[in-house]
Amino acid sequence: MTTTRTTTRTIDGTRIARGIRARVAARVGEIAHGGRVPGLATVLVGDDPASAVYVAAKRRAVREAGMRDIHRHLPHSVTRAEVAAAIDALAADPDVSGILLQLPLPPHLDAPALIDRIPPEKDVDGLTTASAGRLARGERGLRPCTPSGVLRILDAESVELRGARVAMVGWGELVGRPLAQLLLRRGATVTVAHEFTADLAAVTRPADIVVVATGVRGLIGPEHVTPGATVIDVGIHRTAQGLAGDVRAAELDGIAGRITPVPGAVGPMTIAMLLVNTLRAAEWGAGREAVPM
Amino acid sequence: MTTTRTTTRTIDGTRIARGIRARVAARVGEIAHGGRVPGLATVLVGDDPASAVYVAAKRRAVREAGMRDIHRHLPHSVTRAEVAAAIDALAADPDVSGILLQLPLPPHLDAPALIDRIPPEKDVDGLTTASAGRLARGERGLRPCTPSGVLRILDAESVELRGARVAMVGWGELVGRPLAQLLLRRGATVTVAHEFTADLAAVTRPADIVVVATGVRGLIGPEHVTPGATVIDVGIHRTAQGLAGDVRAAELDGIAGRITPVPGAVGPMTIAMLLVNTLRAAEWGAGREAVPM
Ligand SMILES: NC(=O)c1ccc[n+]([C@@H]2O[C@H](COP(=O)([O-])OP(=O)(O)OC[C@H]3O[C@@H](n4cnc5c(N)ncnc54)[C@H](O)[C@@H]3O)[C@@H](O)[C@H]2O)c1
Ligand SMILES: NC(=O)c1ccc[n+]([C@@H]2O[C@H](COP(=O)([O-])OP(=O)(O)OC[C@H]3O[C@@H](n4cnc5c(N)ncnc54)[C@H](O)[C@@H]3O)[C@@H](O)[C@H]2O)c1
Repeated sequence: MTTTRTTTRTIDGTRIARGIRARVAARVGEIAHGGRVPGLATVLVGDDPASAVYVAAKRRAVREAGMRDIHRHLPHSVTRAEVAAAIDALAADPDVSGILLQLPLPPHLDAPALIDRIPPEKDVDGLTTASAGRLARGERGLRPCTPSGVLRILDAESVELRGARVAMVGWGELVGRPLAQLLLRRGATVTVAHEFTADLAAVTRPADIVVVATGVRGLIGPEHVTPGATVIDVGIHRTAQGLAGDVRAAELDGIAGRITPVPGAVGPMTIAMLLVNTLRAAEWGAGREAVPM
Repeated sequence: MTTTRTTTRTIDGTRIARGIRARVAARVGEIAHGGRVPGLATVLVGDDPASAVYVAAKRRAVREAGMRDIHRHLPHSVTRAEVAAAIDALAADPDVSGILLQLPLPPHLDAPALIDRIPPEKDVDGLTTASAGRLARGERGLRPCTPSGVLRILDAESVELRGARVAMVGWGELVGRPLAQLLLRRGATVTVAHEFTADLAAVTRPADIVVVATGVRGLIGPEHVTPGATVIDVGIHRTAQGLAGDVRAAELDGIAGRITPVPGAVGPMTIAMLLVNTLRAAEWGAGREAVPM
């Protein structure tokens, strides 16, 4: 069989993220002029090295955007009441526009209950029950950062969503679940696949867009993707050869129409959308509409 | 082409609903003995005849189950504040286990805001933002009645959901949106289709189960359904020939494996699940776990 090879475009998510971050910084400059500087409070519990790296990257981005960087580092042995008290203090602090509780938390803490202590107005990760309800009902609210970042990538690449067929592979709380809803709101026809899906390729092959967020390294390859499709890889794995994703990107070269690299797309966009959410929380908190970023 | 005709089984949802209602009534009898009788408060605004019929059917079912039937009928001209006050009074009333605000409301009232005045503990329709958030996060809470009724029908018919392919046609707030999530929680691979879906038959044909909730009479026919599939028709239309659904049921005879009739399946199950939710709210309100019904 001869096949026409597609020229696969590697999406430069770092560039898209840089543009958003520059616009956020410009707007922060305007706001800071007339009043309050937006502030993000990060709460890190314990000494998980990956979490420390993520939080450091977020704090750096916050400072680079000209926002206030507030940080609470609590020891692994902290009690649930102590974490709750720290969140309550940040919730009451007018200098704090957004609160990010870095996950995972040590197992002795009740993560869902602590997440739900963050007031929805400051829930820049969009993970509280209140934010999930607002998303489900299509009400104004803060949406989770990684899913919002994926939408921004598709928009930046002018990928039409209305009427498109999307395979959302993975239905996790952080990515797949909220992202499926966001894609449906944009008019996509969405199939959600997960660990119980019997024939994954049958589900992904008809899709114009395949989004993968499973935590299974290299799960998706040429057998899953129709020529020309857009492939978004949310997975992130540390390997001896550097970072890798849930997609076997090299094998999709010449098949996918567009593909996001790992690293260099969804990761940077997640941080950019955290800044957008923090700015948005600050604008809403001041009783203003948020300027689109 | 010769095709093997399937024998199509018509699902007797009225019988399934009757069984649930009998179990609810038995449990209500037990509870009433030792303490408080569960009560459902229905709030009807204006004189929409269809709404009046629905509310009357719900109230009758409540009384037949031995529960307390509380009713507030407000005139079409009522203000938003007056409806809010009525809901607040029912929310504070310990005799009221559940509150049902019959939809649609007259357009001068802000339906989403009034729905959200119902405390989640009494939200037996499962439509508040809080209940939607609990569903999205998989937390304990009251689920919308029609989607729960559809799941009960599939369970009563021993239709395997884990790994099954489901086409959810329609993504409305009352049915498709919550039901897609409930099906995913049960391990189904779910495709959500809606008015922007380009090729509906391509989406529904691979499905083992097709659930239709669009409000488009006769939308689904043999061209959409693979032989042997289970078809659940949530639509309900008043016609000169009686009630009709979103599915051309007669044309699916010999093709579908199982099909729900309209009337006689999803409608009665919706009422049965309202009773289950009211009982559940009463048990939770008394600090007890709810007995499965
Ligand atoms: N790049 C980023 O900034 C970023 C941010 C968040 C998450 N992530 C990554 O995204 C991935 C998903 O995150 P999450 O929190 O939603 O994960 P999760 O563990 O909550 O969910 C994983 C989902 O994948 C499904 N799955 C597992 N094995 C599968 C298989 N073989 N086939 C199909 N589906 C399968 C599971 O059923 C589940 O629905 C992880 O790899 C995580 O590291 C990346
Ligand atoms: N039997 C019951 O007890 C019961 C209870 C609730 C609702 N219903 C019925 O269920 C239906 C849906 O209710 P709802 O409140 O979710 O409706 P809705 O109006 O909120 O949503 C309808 C959905 O159908 C989709 N749709 C419209 N035209 C379509 C088409 N041609 N192809 C594919 N999708 C299409 C829309 O995009 C939307 O997602 C209605 O007919 C309603 O009467 C029945």
